Amino acid sequence: MFDFTFHNPTKIIFGADKETLIGAELKAAGISRVLLVYGCNSVIKSGLLERVMSSLAASNIAWTQFGGVVSNPLLAHTREGVALAKQDQVEAILAVGGGSVLDEAKAIAVGALTAEDVWQFFLGQKVERALPLFTILTLAATGSEMNGNSVITNASARQKYNISSPHVYPRVSILNPELTHSVPLNYTAYSAVDAITHVCEGYFTKQPGTRLQDRLVEGIIKTVRETTELIMAEPTHAKARASFMWAATLALNGLTPAGVGKYSFPNHMIEHALSAIYNIPHGAGLSIVMPAWMKWYCPQNPDQFARFAREIFGLDSGEAGIAALEQWFIKIKSPVRLHEVGILATDIEAIAKNAHGLARQWGIAELYPQETIAEILRLAV
Amino acid sequence: MFDFTFHNPTKIIFGADKETLIGAELKAAGISRVLLVYGCNSVIKSGLLERVMSSLAASNIAWTQFGGVVSNPLLAHTREGVALAKQDQVEAILAVGGGSVLDEAKAIAVGALTAEDVWQFFLGQKVERALPLFTILTLAATGSEMNGNSVITNASARQKYNISSPHVYPRVSILNPELTHSVPLNYTAYSAVDAITHVCEGYFTKQPGTRLQDRLVEGIIKTVRETTELIMAEPTHAKARASFMWAATLALNGLTPAGVGKYSFPNHMIEHALSAIYNIPHGAGLSIVMPAWMKWYCPQNPDQFARFAREIFGLDSGEAGIAALEQWFIKIKSPVRLHEVGILATDIEAIAKNAHGLARQWGIAELYPQETIAEILRLAV
Repeated sequence: MFDFTFHNPTKIIFGADKETLIGAELKAAGISRVLLVYGCNSVIKSGLLERVMSSLAASNIAWTQFGGVVSNPLLAHTREGVALAKQDQVEAILAVGGGSVLDEAKAIAVGALTAEDVWQFFLGQKVERALPLFTILTLAATGSEMNGNSVITNASARQKYNISSPHVYPRVSILNPELTHSVPLNYTAYSAVDAITHVCEGYFTKQPGTRLQDRLVEGIIKTVRETTELIMAEPTHAKARASFMWAATLALNGLTPAGVGKYSFPNHMIEHALSAIYNIPHGAGLSIVMPAWMKWYCPQNPDQFARFAREIFGLDSGEAGIAALEQWFIKIKSPVRLHEVGILATDIEAIAKNAHGLARQWGIAELYPQETIAEILRLAV
Repeated sequence: MFDFTFHNPTKIIFGADKETLIGAELKAAGISRVLLVYGCNSVIKSGLLERVMSSLAASNIAWTQFGGVVSNPLLAHTREGVALAKQDQVEAILAVGGGSVLDEAKAIAVGALTAEDVWQFFLGQKVERALPLFTILTLAATGSEMNGNSVITNASARQKYNISSPHVYPRVSILNPELTHSVPLNYTAYSAVDAITHVCEGYFTKQPGTRLQDRLVEGIIKTVRETTELIMAEPTHAKARASFMWAATLALNGLTPAGVGKYSFPNHMIEHALSAIYNIPHGAGLSIVMPAWMKWYCPQNPDQFARFAREIFGLDSGEAGIAALEQWFIKIKSPVRLHEVGILATDIEAIAKNAHGLARQWGIAELYPQETIAEILRLAV
């Protein structure tokens, strides 16, 4: 165990129809006008947005609609949201959608309270304050509903950068697992990969000897695997969708790394470079990167890989555990090689260069020189 | 999975020497005067109280000392604390000690903001507000440092009752595991029993089929057992003391029951009656009650007891798992029979009557008529 501070003040309201409580929650927080951030038309077609607006109206909360957030949310669109939040003097941001919508909403919450360009904060400036954020989640994957992280893509600079700040933890996040029943199976698979990767980053890169945290991680991975298979067989499996959703939240809410000391996010680093350049789904990128990274990293932490193989797959070697995880990604139809998403071996140097830029930002440039990242990526050809 | 709300806003600061940060934390919260609540002389002898007061002085925080909290904290003493808090117009309560000190501090925090007698809230009146609470923990066991529970004993009425309210979550809890190195081994054993019981109550009494929560519970139990054995062999084993401390916090911070639906605390119900009448250590009472309750309850939930036996002890029947847990309590020298703490079989009816009073308060009177509780207690003769 190492010293840590754990402080996660997000209130989670979990269950069927809970999105109808959003008006009352905002009112209780003294808020009278929000920027209502969402993505594509699916939240309109499904009737969710209408239910949300009814709840707002019933509590006399005014709103400004701001749709059009895309997967791998874009800086240019974020800036539009910041301008609108300022223009309409909203008092809070309400995000209705998946991780991308939540991440962009967080960025808007930061940008709305400063005269500076919001990208400055993604380049390293410290976030000092943000508008309060409320969320209604429609996709279980990123954990953004219960953490202080936001990832935004600057398309022209081909940079997918993040902020991490206590000021952007949602005040309230509403998780209705029924809203995820219609998530397509390919995106469910990518979400499973994302949640598993979130816990694996710390599990493999921390120092050895924090078994409580190991066990929390293993419990989450087992649950994600088990529920993903149930969902693949029956997409509206209510119990499985619900457990999957809560497991994905716990996978990146600060619980599993509390006390483990220093650790890093090498798979996310490399994947952010991939999707910054190629705009592939984040989870699809991760299922390509992670087996490759594991094969490269396994000799540096053989005991933990052996433990992973034993606890998750009942296998007796680290290599066998990595192979089993890769096979499982194949089974749930998430890609495991670069060519499956149209990336060529000749693209590797450009990706490695981009990822190394992130490695510098994340303080792991010495561990991950460009050539090392290229070596890892070549294992995914 | 069942609907739930999870909201745990306590900030945990964990690590060596972190108690020296308390002045700065109070100052950051805008507080200038606290009631400093503690127990016996050990925090004076160890120098802890002096370090805390130095930190307060350095941040210009004034304080009123209020020592003398006992194990199974008493209503009469709580009322003195309430009067003192009002008299000196403190703005917050600072608790330095174990679960008993924290529980009494919570009760004082509630009593300080009302003209009513504080016991009314333990009899069922709703808590509407409380002074902010800050804690420095010296004993890992009760989880009080990260939850909204407080248990107080009304000695004259022989009632050990509790409140549970979002208003008494500590704002900040400082956990320095080094402060627990000097905890005697018998109290370490009782603490281990307490933490294990906290997670077992929900694990066995909830509906089946919430495996994520099962796994979180099993991870905590495995960690408590493993670290207790390391501590028994080497009381200042730093890593074991630290992991034990964090596991005990997670055992009752709302994490493991989130989503499991209705569950109950039968072992705590019976034990509160035991220690209300006999003033025995809470954990010692629990290690007597729990094996007896398990033997009685096992036929009502055989699959979960089989799972417990398999996951925790590698055994293949529920009965074998219960026997193994009882043997483990004996191994760590926590009592498992009533006579070991001087309670006679002829006392059982009085205990059962007292416990049934609690069963009514906790809404499980139908499940636990007095005769059933007596039947369970007879298994501990």
